[in-house]
Amino acid sequence: MSDRKGHRSGGRASAHRRQTGHAIAQPPWRIPVNPDHPTEPLPPEGVAAIHEAAMRVLEEIGIEFLHPEARDVLARAGCAVEPDGCNVRMDRAWVMEKVALAPAEFTITPRNPDRAIRIGGPHMVFSAVASPPNVMDLDRGRRVGDFASFRDLTKLTQYFNCLHVAGGYPVEPVDLHASIRHLDCIHAALTLTDKVSHAYSLGPDRVEDVLEMARLASGLPADEFFAIPRLYTNINSSSPLKHDWPMLDGAMRFARRGQPVIVTPFTLAGAMAPVTMAGAVVQSVAECLAAVALLQQINPGTPCVMGTFTSNVDMKSGAPAFGTPEYMRATQMSGQMARFYRLPLRASNACAANAPDAQAMWESMNSLWAAVQSRTNFVFHGAGWLEGGLIASYEKLVMDCEAIQQIQRYFEPVLVDTSADALALEAIREVGPNGNFFGASHTQDRYATAFYAPFLSDWRNFEAWSGAGATWTAERANRIWKKILAEYEPPPMDPDAREALDDFVARRKAEGGAETDF
Amino acid sequence: MSDRKGHRSGGRASAHRRQTGHAIAQPPWRIPVNPDHPTEPLPPEGVAAIHEAAMRVLEEIGIEFLHPEARDVLARAGCAVEPDGCNVRMDRAWVMEKVALAPAEFTITPRNPDRAIRIGGPHMVFSAVASPPNVMDLDRGRRVGDFASFRDLTKLTQYFNCLHVAGGYPVEPVDLHASIRHLDCIHAALTLTDKVSHAYSLGPDRVEDVLEMARLASGLPADEFFAIPRLYTNINSSSPLKHDWPMLDGAMRFARRGQPVIVTPFTLAGAMAPVTMAGAVVQSVAECLAAVALLQQINPGTPCVMGTFTSNVDMKSGAPAFGTPEYMRATQMSGQMARFYRLPLRASNACAANAPDAQAMWESMNSLWAAVQSRTNFVFHGAGWLEGGLIASYEKLVMDCEAIQQIQRYFEPVLVDTSADALALEAIREVGPNGNFFGASHTQDRYATAFYAPFLSDWRNFEAWSGAGATWTAERANRIWKKILAEYEPPPMDPDAREALDDFVARRKAEGGAETDF
Repeated sequence: MSDRKGHRSGGRASAHRRQTGHAIAQPPWRIPVNPDHPTEPLPPEGVAAIHEAAMRVLEEIGIEFLHPEARDVLARAGCAVEPDGCNVRMDRAWVMEKVALAPAEFTITPRNPDRAIRIGGPHMVFSAVASPPNVMDLDRGRRVGDFASFRDLTKLTQYFNCLHVAGGYPVEPVDLHASIRHLDCIHAALTLTDKVSHAYSLGPDRVEDVLEMARLASGLPADEFFAIPRLYTNINSSSPLKHDWPMLDGAMRFARRGQPVIVTPFTLAGAMAPVTMAGAVVQSVAECLAAVALLQQINPGTPCVMGTFTSNVDMKSGAPAFGTPEYMRATQMSGQMARFYRLPLRASNACAANAPDAQAMWESMNSLWAAVQSRTNFVFHGAGWLEGGLIASYEKLVMDCEAIQQIQRYFEPVLVDTSADALALEAIREVGPNGNFFGASHTQDRYATAFYAPFLSDWRNFEAWSGAGATWTAERANRIWKKILAEYEPPPMDPDAREALDDFVARRKAEGGAETDF
Repeated sequence: MSDRKGHRSGGRASAHRRQTGHAIAQPPWRIPVNPDHPTEPLPPEGVAAIHEAAMRVLEEIGIEFLHPEARDVLARAGCAVEPDGCNVRMDRAWVMEKVALAPAEFTITPRNPDRAIRIGGPHMVFSAVASPPNVMDLDRGRRVGDFASFRDLTKLTQYFNCLHVAGGYPVEPVDLHASIRHLDCIHAALTLTDKVSHAYSLGPDRVEDVLEMARLASGLPADEFFAIPRLYTNINSSSPLKHDWPMLDGAMRFARRGQPVIVTPFTLAGAMAPVTMAGAVVQSVAECLAAVALLQQINPGTPCVMGTFTSNVDMKSGAPAFGTPEYMRATQMSGQMARFYRLPLRASNACAANAPDAQAMWESMNSLWAAVQSRTNFVFHGAGWLEGGLIASYEKLVMDCEAIQQIQRYFEPVLVDTSADALALEAIREVGPNGNFFGASHTQDRYATAFYAPFLSDWRNFEAWSGAGATWTAERANRIWKKILAEYEPPPMDPDAREALDDFVARRKAEGGAETDF
């Protein structure tokens, strides 16, 4: 073993550690490319059947748009708007014509252009958990989300190269008043990270503030800033069959500026959607396409993403369940539909577990592999989600990053290289039946980079692991996030841009922030 | 919620629980059918390149057969046997002709014909962990394997319908002397379960004893018993490039009686095989095919399975790692090769973790999904493996069964049904934009069986979970295996067969069992 240890001390992993002084060694930033053919449970007739049913929902049943301006736009485009009501029915030819205007792939460029993300095609990016009301770690247990934990989780999002995007507030900072919460949160997001930001569609004031803050952080004039996608919003329909006012308002504002919109119906089978998975997907597709068609009518070419959040409920309690067999198939079917409509796909790394334990990981692995198999382009809630999205967990975030790094490594072509060198016929000949490959030059030449090196998995034997304290995974994750936060350094930022951003926040706070009714 | 709860009390899960008095509700016994197209990382040229390199290993480098009879058979068949040595080189045309004689699919029928398993094609069966020297549970920690834990784990194997096969000794019972260990173990396996048994190829006495014991348990005369596959052996090559005497001896005895042989090289990349994954697969394929060709020469049509156990080592320690990205790709590539040779595939549910925790499950989920994606037919070590196979864990066995049940549910066609009923257009119309689907007749008609119901996952919200003790998964698994063992009942057995089996064991023990050198 000694020669291998000696070899390794000069290897990539430790060199990387030395170079960066990082708490962990991690692969560099990159946009993963998923090379696998997707898993497609539906035959072409199945895709056609779901499409036909979704079109009939739009034509015969309709979707409620709780925003007068959206209804006006749709009426002018020839849709059948209910007199004195919110229901809108759409002709399938018109819907398909509009949906075809959305790009199949696009790029979002944040203030640091090196952090640009490609959405669509074979690309697959990951964000951290978004929007839980509670936060949890092993030391402090579960508690209501606050700004300190928001900042911690944002720093972790920045730290991990396997996370490409900020996916919304990693936890809801309930200690900040709602009127100024978005100002402090987006200020933190834009200064603690240089990755792509998300804006909640929670009313015009907030949306306009966030768009302006992202622009100020970039240091660019408005025309240059809005010339390409810079940030994004994710909207959820109020399933069944309804788009709410604030979501539509935000989405339309984003569309007018050519900024990307992810449309994600929350179609929980048996609750807000049919109990059958195909039925839930039909409804999800219909709700999504209705919004996409509206946004294309407003600004043709607006980048749009089809979101899927179709899962089932617990038969015992009615509570949402995630990472289930039904969830996986719904995600794969949604992938087939997204490709049918030539829209990028968003899915999630979701689970129902209440602790960062074994169940959390089998559910998350099911969700993550379903994302891979469905050719998901944007994995929302990629790291840190527990309790069906009600908890942001420090330890789970670290654990998910280990799993995500492994998936990103899995994508690397070198693993399935069959060049003459990789086939290793001469090494097999050289070693023969009585040797081993430890010392072979074929091994030595490749050893340092041949295999993925985990930062959280403990691969020691039981004696060594036990002698070092027999630490279970969640506890190791606990130590790692502390090390990372201790050494965290914010990404560089242009001082003028920083000052402009600070000034904006100060001014808007002085003005009272966004209107609230409390 | 009350109506749903009321509905559920008459649903499938509780009815099943009532009927059977089982500790858990579980789906019935069945042979799973994997409907997915496999994930195929290699293009056709990649498959051809691995085949070409494997053939050159057989033709130019050769494999050592440490059994004179095997070499005689191969020499008579025209292979180039090294004079005064063990190396055998084989012509590719001859190898391919022999391998083509092995059936692509076959059935193994144990003493209870209702437990017959189909190996090959889209079928996927799972066995429990096999062969760890140690056993572990949360109460007693890790300890050397004994016959009491052997019996416990065998009972759990019998209990879970998602496990179809006994995969060898679920733990090595070190408290039994090696001379009579196989007698007690196979007696326990044949009486505590009615599932297909495995025989270790550990010398002629033991192999003959086990074949005879399986026959006696069936109550059939020899000609009828050996007319079809009844049990199986798994042999491992001593990689690199070597088949040992006891393994070959057992495999040849099995072949002569038409009993199935799984050939599984243990090709750890960077140790006993090339550091490149394709190179390790080349070597694994060559070692496997060499044995398969021998067995087909001995008895054409002998059922053979291509085993894959290609993984990588830990860059830090040289210890084997499992469920890694490299492991997944090697398994998928091996699946492509198995289909190329029209042989069924064996893979494993392997992990490196030392505790039944989060790491154990992300590694196992990677291994299990790789097995699905590679269209594996026989998942060895399906449930209960920890520490790279050095620990059989009670809790991990229960956790793996939860994961495996979910995979088997995932295979069910109903999840991707797109019939008019499943598309649910009328239910969507009926519920409309202001209702929910809880009370819809479309939901009520399907509610009880619409979704997989886990026995180990806890889907309650945090408050309910916390109020009930905030029990992490491993602890819940601990409670479940105790309940299962408490209610375990052995499967029925013909009294005459039982008596014959008992008598045989008594006689062979009186004779001293198998020869040992201690």
